[in-house]
Amino acid sequence: MKPIDYLMRSLMFVPAHNEKLMESALSRNADVLLLDLEDSVQPAENKQIARDNIKKYIAEGKLKNRIVFPRVNDRESGHLLQDVYQLAIDGIEGFMYPKSKKGEDIYFFGKLLETIEYEKGFPRHTFKIIALIETPGAVMNIQEICTACPERLIAVAFGCEDFMTELGGQHDSEYNSIFTARAMIAMGAKANGVIPIDTVHIKVHDLEDLEKNLILGRQLGFEGMLVLNPKEIPLVHQYYSPSDEEIAWAEEMLQLSEEAIEQGRGVAVKDNKFIGPPMVKMAKSILRKKNLIDNYLC
Amino acid sequence: MKPIDYLMRSLMFVPAHNEKLMESALSRNADVLLLDLEDSVQPAENKQIARDNIKKYIAEGKLKNRIVFPRVNDRESGHLLQDVYQLAIDGIEGFMYPKSKKGEDIYFFGKLLETIEYEKGFPRHTFKIIALIETPGAVMNIQEICTACPERLIAVAFGCEDFMTELGGQHDSEYNSIFTARAMIAMGAKANGVIPIDTVHIKVHDLEDLEKNLILGRQLGFEGMLVLNPKEIPLVHQYYSPSDEEIAWAEEMLQLSEEAIEQGRGVAVKDNKFIGPPMVKMAKSILRKKNLIDNYLC
Amino acid sequence: MKPIDYLMRSLMFVPAHNEKLMESALSRNADVLLLDLEDSVQPAENKQIARDNIKKYIAEGKLKNRIVFPRVNDRESGHLLQDVYQLAIDGIEGFMYPKSKKGEDIYFFGKLLETIEYEKGFPRHTFKIIALIETPGAVMNIQEICTACPERLIAVAFGCEDFMTELGGQHDSEYNSIFTARAMIAMGAKANGVIPIDTVHIKVHDLEDLEKNLILGRQLGFEGMLVLNPKEIPLVHQYYSPSDEEIAWAEEMLQLSEEAIEQGRGVAVKDNKFIGPPMVKMAKSILRKKNLIDNYLC
Repeated sequence: MKPIDYLMRSLMFVPAHNEKLMESALSRNADVLLLDLEDSVQPAENKQIARDNIKKYIAEGKLKNRIVFPRVNDRESGHLLQDVYQLAIDGIEGFMYPKSKKGEDIYFFGKLLETIEYEKGFPRHTFKIIALIETPGAVMNIQEICTACPERLIAVAFGCEDFMTELGGQHDSEYNSIFTARAMIAMGAKANGVIPIDTVHIKVHDLEDLEKNLILGRQLGFEGMLVLNPKEIPLVHQYYSPSDEEIAWAEEMLQLSEEAIEQGRGVAVKDNKFIGPPMVKMAKSILRKKNLIDNYLC
Repeated sequence: MKPIDYLMRSLMFVPAHNEKLMESALSRNADVLLLDLEDSVQPAENKQIARDNIKKYIAEGKLKNRIVFPRVNDRESGHLLQDVYQLAIDGIEGFMYPKSKKGEDIYFFGKLLETIEYEKGFPRHTFKIIALIETPGAVMNIQEICTACPERLIAVAFGCEDFMTELGGQHDSEYNSIFTARAMIAMGAKANGVIPIDTVHIKVHDLEDLEKNLILGRQLGFEGMLVLNPKEIPLVHQYYSPSDEEIAWAEEMLQLSEEAIEQGRGVAVKDNKFIGPPMVKMAKSILRKKNLIDNYLC
Repeated sequence: MKPIDYLMRSLMFVPAHNEKLMESALSRNADVLLLDLEDSVQPAENKQIARDNIKKYIAEGKLKNRIVFPRVNDRESGHLLQDVYQLAIDGIEGFMYPKSKKGEDIYFFGKLLETIEYEKGFPRHTFKIIALIETPGAVMNIQEICTACPERLIAVAFGCEDFMTELGGQHDSEYNSIFTARAMIAMGAKANGVIPIDTVHIKVHDLEDLEKNLILGRQLGFEGMLVLNPKEIPLVHQYYSPSDEEIAWAEEMLQLSEEAIEQGRGVAVKDNKFIGPPMVKMAKSILRKKNLIDNYLC
């Protein structure tokens, strides 16, 4: 699949060693499940339990029709090779890769996946990558990261908590401290055909503040966001789905545009204004997203 | 001419196939006329009418003493070669090139102009380029774009509407969604001796909001802005021209500085403060702009 | 020393030819003394007086235990070689280099220092560099600058006044015009292990406004700021020192983390949350800074 074929409004983290949270996640309609092997799976003894859990859920068919991206441990953790080697299996769409700083980190991870694909007999580029952007380096090198492995990298997701720790900055209630990083991630991703995903919302229980951030996220060009708590999902889907007005507008645009082509007029007119290629492109993108939502199991 | 020799406070788009708007534009004092062959010239049959119109206006001397930059169609439009081949003529200063994403797009366009210059016998670098920055890629690659064709590229102009469509973001009343892009464009241009031009103002009839944007544009380092409607020009010129106070300050700076040199003192003093090279540079730039305005026909 | 070993909350400029200001600076507890040979030393006759002054103060032991970085004149000034050749001596930690635009400017300056080190018999990399980021180019090329001379470049400092003049922008009371530059400098520095230092505060006598800027500076990831007037130092140190709460938090984090390792648990827990590597890293950084402050003479 290409990035435009993925529905990525909500990507929910689930600690994969935790049966209760895994079961709970199955009943939720997050677009993507980020089954975590990394930060929320502690101590290290739980890493193998988490991997086994994911394999068991897949074998039991419980993750059928779900888009599943395990979040693996980073290259320096001592766990990464087991994570990907064991979980490069049918039923896994790809992996979320943490703590990258440069394009070469993603290049490395892509080549690691390729090596495993050759060994296991999967077609090349079977497994996709979502890169976590959670260091100042990754923000500054966002374009390098987005182009380092184009056949696999479908999305980049901002992780503002590790970012802030690495930056040595401080969160503020207006999110000024992460404003520039967000804008650069969204622009860098869109410039290279990659889906930008906004950071987790750090005040998990403040839904009003979540809404403010969803509005800003959409303005800046994000297509979805990371979710820690299922109660965030309804608002996230509301803001990252096309509205009825947008759908009606898009349908009219395409209809007028098709009529103009049929009638050999070359270009459509609406309210005395010509409908240019960027508007047609935007209309198609809205309807494609609507279509993905309509066909999604939840 | 070098970028510093251009007066570029207002650059007004005019659909070149539209006689009435062309005539009207001649009576307006926009510093630069962007005679459009692209988005506002629809359907395709009008493209040749627009080209012929520009040639006719030049032949009739109606564009004498005006700085004229046709906006050509992009590389994938099927119209670009005719646009530039037909209009690389005396009376045209250069071309506005749309939808670039990388430096190599500008490099390509520069080489295309060079090829035409060789064929038609114009000196190399006769025709200048204004690059429209209207994709997220162009914003992120602003320095690459500004250095790809240094003898021709005199200005970059932000086009926030196509930018927003490509970004998949949403405009907001505070313009937060384009804030970072604007800052990066102005910094990237100035870092490379290129004139940064701010985006068209999307609320064409809200002059109060225009004023807010002019203030922000100047703060961020822009030297002028794109104009859709002639009624915006007076405010645009007011904000992008040096004020009487600035001119008086600049004249005093230069006078003190020259006196200091004559008297062998090396450095001038004003209110007990030394006048450093950046202030002298700023003063010269203010007076150069004043001079350009005084010598402009309108 | 590595960047993390430097305490750089306050870096105060002192015109080095001015005995009174030099004496006064000695009684102040700025973490770093930027003994100026550049903009504040005018006319040119005073440059040698300033160099001699620094040598005299060092010979008299007056700068013992102080971190001293002369600010040299730029490459085009005609003074740079004398500045560094005369002052590459014991007692000088390194040099602040002004007006760089690209990584290659810092590379040049690093090689110049190396040449002098070979001639004078100093070990390579004895003299460190603080790069002033005061052109739009330096902001846009911040990563290139931070990686051009990694063994010497310990900090980058934003100089917003020359930046604004080169940008041709205008300061505003909310500092919107320098917001993006600040964020990019802090991210670019931290991405490469370099200490980011915030700009001088232009309203020297408005301490309330200084405080607003200190809060923003910390949020964006700066570790300290440039100081023009000694009366700014107490507030600067207050904001750029870890608070008692931060120190208590950091101590608890490290204690829990060490206990967990001793007991073979692999990971510590606090309030039912695991203490991940980024939190341990942040805790160590807080305590390292506390330690530097405790050991500082003032």
